[in-house]
Amino acid sequence: MSLPAGEVTENTLTELAPLLTAGDVIVETGNSFYRDTIRRAEWLARQGLVLLDQGTSGGIWGLEIGFNLMIGGSREAFARLEPAFATLAPPDGYLHVGPSGAGHFVKMVHNGIEHGMLQAYGEGFEILHASDFTELDLRAISHLWNQGSVVRSWLLELAERSFEKEPDLASIRGYVEDSGEGRWAVAEAIDKDVPAPVLALSLLMRFRSRQEDSFAAKVIAGLRNEFGGHAVKPQE
Amino acid sequence: MSLPAGEVTENTLTELAPLLTAGDVIVETGNSFYRDTIRRAEWLARQGLVLLDQGTSGGIWGLEIGFNLMIGGSREAFARLEPAFATLAPPDGYLHVGPSGAGHFVKMVHNGIEHGMLQAYGEGFEILHASDFTELDLRAISHLWNQGSVVRSWLLELAERSFEKEPDLASIRGYVEDSGEGRWAVAEAIDKDVPAPVLALSLLMRFRSRQEDSFAAKVIAGLRNEFGGHAVKPQE
Amino acid sequence: MSLPAGEVTENTLTELAPLLTAGDVIVETGNSFYRDTIRRAEWLARQGLVLLDQGTSGGIWGLEIGFNLMIGGSREAFARLEPAFATLAPPDGYLHVGPSGAGHFVKMVHNGIEHGMLQAYGEGFEILHASDFTELDLRAISHLWNQGSVVRSWLLELAERSFEKEPDLASIRGYVEDSGEGRWAVAEAIDKDVPAPVLALSLLMRFRSRQEDSFAAKVIAGLRNEFGGHAVKPQE
Amino acid sequence: MSLPAGEVTENTLTELAPLLTAGDVIVETGNSFYRDTIRRAEWLARQGLVLLDQGTSGGIWGLEIGFNLMIGGSREAFARLEPAFATLAPPDGYLHVGPSGAGHFVKMVHNGIEHGMLQAYGEGFEILHASDFTELDLRAISHLWNQGSVVRSWLLELAERSFEKEPDLASIRGYVEDSGEGRWAVAEAIDKDVPAPVLALSLLMRFRSRQEDSFAAKVIAGLRNEFGGHAVKPQE
Repeated sequence: MSLPAGEVTENTLTELAPLLTAGDVIVETGNSFYRDTIRRAEWLARQGLVLLDQGTSGGIWGLEIGFNLMIGGSREAFARLEPAFATLAPPDGYLHVGPSGAGHFVKMVHNGIEHGMLQAYGEGFEILHASDFTELDLRAISHLWNQGSVVRSWLLELAERSFEKEPDLASIRGYVEDSGEGRWAVAEAIDKDVPAPVLALSLLMRFRSRQEDSFAAKVIAGLRNEFGGHAVKPQE
Repeated sequence: MSLPAGEVTENTLTELAPLLTAGDVIVETGNSFYRDTIRRAEWLARQGLVLLDQGTSGGIWGLEIGFNLMIGGSREAFARLEPAFATLAPPDGYLHVGPSGAGHFVKMVHNGIEHGMLQAYGEGFEILHASDFTELDLRAISHLWNQGSVVRSWLLELAERSFEKEPDLASIRGYVEDSGEGRWAVAEAIDKDVPAPVLALSLLMRFRSRQEDSFAAKVIAGLRNEFGGHAVKPQE
Repeated sequence: MSLPAGEVTENTLTELAPLLTAGDVIVETGNSFYRDTIRRAEWLARQGLVLLDQGTSGGIWGLEIGFNLMIGGSREAFARLEPAFATLAPPDGYLHVGPSGAGHFVKMVHNGIEHGMLQAYGEGFEILHASDFTELDLRAISHLWNQGSVVRSWLLELAERSFEKEPDLASIRGYVEDSGEGRWAVAEAIDKDVPAPVLALSLLMRFRSRQEDSFAAKVIAGLRNEFGGHAVKPQE
Repeated sequence: MSLPAGEVTENTLTELAPLLTAGDVIVETGNSFYRDTIRRAEWLARQGLVLLDQGTSGGIWGLEIGFNLMIGGSREAFARLEPAFATLAPPDGYLHVGPSGAGHFVKMVHNGIEHGMLQAYGEGFEILHASDFTELDLRAISHLWNQGSVVRSWLLELAERSFEKEPDLASIRGYVEDSGEGRWAVAEAIDKDVPAPVLALSLLMRFRSRQEDSFAAKVIAGLRNEFGGHAVKPQE
């Protein structure tokens, strides 16, 4: 079952359950919140049904090289379905990571890390872009860094492709969505008293990227005008 | 001498020095970088001249209630000019804080704190503004909080004034300048291995407020498109 | 009713409700999560009872100067109890800020701002403390700043008292608890897509202050050893 | 010339220059600050000497797979020495990125990104470590993620090695040094008004990792005691 997290997944499970036979296994491969998964697995277990949660990574490239699968739930059910996982994933690319919810949990943390890495690359390239060295070739530098540097990664290989299409990303607006998993990762950090400033800031900068204007900044501009007579920029 | 920090101050001191007599005292009241002040004081001392550095706070309200003065340099020169400082400042509102540069240093840290406080208020009011409680009256809440709450402050009194003029700050663009002192405060923190995330972020959010678009966010939007096929918002 | 947020408040309301008469008003003055308050008010309303939520600020000083009260819920009930609020609060120090939950909501944001202000002061004083100007008198500077500077506030008046007791805070461990409201403020910001880096970082630095060691830092130290052969500090 | 950045490099160049013949090329492969490099290249150019700056990445693994080289300076000198660079680097692993200083500049940004990536991984693993899913195997998850997930990278391959040696990193203290380049990257961002919160926070968390106690946190603990009577933890 591969559906958007939330209501659709909830409703589909509710409709699906009565149609199944005891011992049947549902593999839920969406980006569900792991606590929802735990609750649903318990509900299904009371009906003799098994829910495996599968966090899935690799994006649209999975079709080509296989999908990365983080699986939570019954170890027996996992063993039963292992041939399917092995077919979908690249070698060593699937793992039973823990009980119900653990697959979605590990995927959630994966996405938090992804947010942080993307923001780190984004900031680095922005510093290069803003530099007095005006001739820096971001595609060439991405390609260079992928040959043995400490920051080499698959995301950086994609950066090569992105900068190849358009060296200055002129047509792209700096507007970044988020899928929900990054929020849950930060919420989980807060829930467990884990200081995770990079994951948090990566998320907050996405929020900022989607604002036409910042109310906080308006407040500050207004206050600076009050105490220092600093000029305020009017709305255009 | 009350001039913009940097070249103007430097040049004026250079022109002024030969016109003075040994023992003369210059009070430099601008927002100079404290290391420049230390260097200038040494240069002037070699000519028998005294430089006092005066960090000044209070904004345009100083005219009415007196200016807050943080003074660095020779204690004797300070004592000689004390009647002037006492005239400019409110009661207890001036202090010899240390040797040359200390006045500008303390003012620099003051401005760093100011950045952090402003951002804290800005974020808080943005959360109120974005709330489902759509009828919250930001001016009334500012006024309320100033009556005995933990967050009461002079800046919050100014917030009352600001929201009174325009409850939703509609005419103000969220574009926030910075004077230089906030940057130096962060640079000083880095120089001394002091973790100062709030001072740093307050500064960085000002930078962000002045960007039409974020190159970092463009990079991320481009990468998300590469790996996940996530749609990119085109430039308008 | 003034009880710790959470189970105690929940249970007490459940026991209290059957003992009351239709039209009775309960004022809940703890630091409850505002969504709990909304739910409880609806539950009580179905029994003809009224719940007012009162966010309370001012700390232990309220006894002396009055408490700052942010009140949510029925406007009629508020009007009925206004004499009590007026008695508890300093002049202008209580306000009906909105419907059920709004009082606790405004208090939650207040505490988020408080976190940010405290962290801003903390970082500023740490920069002063780490400075080459080794003779800076933090109590004297706090007192100075309170005389007309931009950063003057009640918290800064308390800083005077704190540094007066102990100039270098030598006996205090840098271990900072949090009450829950700061977390909810950050969660609310995330829920509403509000970038609130200063509120978030103030919270995360409190978490960090309570860690003996950082697992994230252990990971990084380990990785730096792997790629660069950088020495790792062993546990003592 | 491969020496620690700073005085040693400066002095060695000063001693070396008079021993060289016009047209000679010095390749400076340390982690020098790029503005120092520009200055030194100009100074050497006035003596007919050529300075190439080579940022070098890959850590101790370079010996095995080749070093990643980012080279700045004269394009002719670069062409002359290209066989040497090609010998040191893996295929496509060296590049002339720009004029004098550009090599060290690009390396500086590389290290800033590295800081951010390391912190992102560190925080992610800390969230896994703090989880209620107590059986998560961090080595196995690192290995899994390296098979086709979005966050796969060389650093994550090293994480496998690190967790293999010691699953919970028990013997490692969470104490993280920094080499200087990360600081310069943040300073450069500030100099160019680039909001780089993740690079900044990664640096600041390293500072925090090296503190026995936090003065900022002591200030906050003291203030919370003043306003709320909250207990202070004494020093042990």
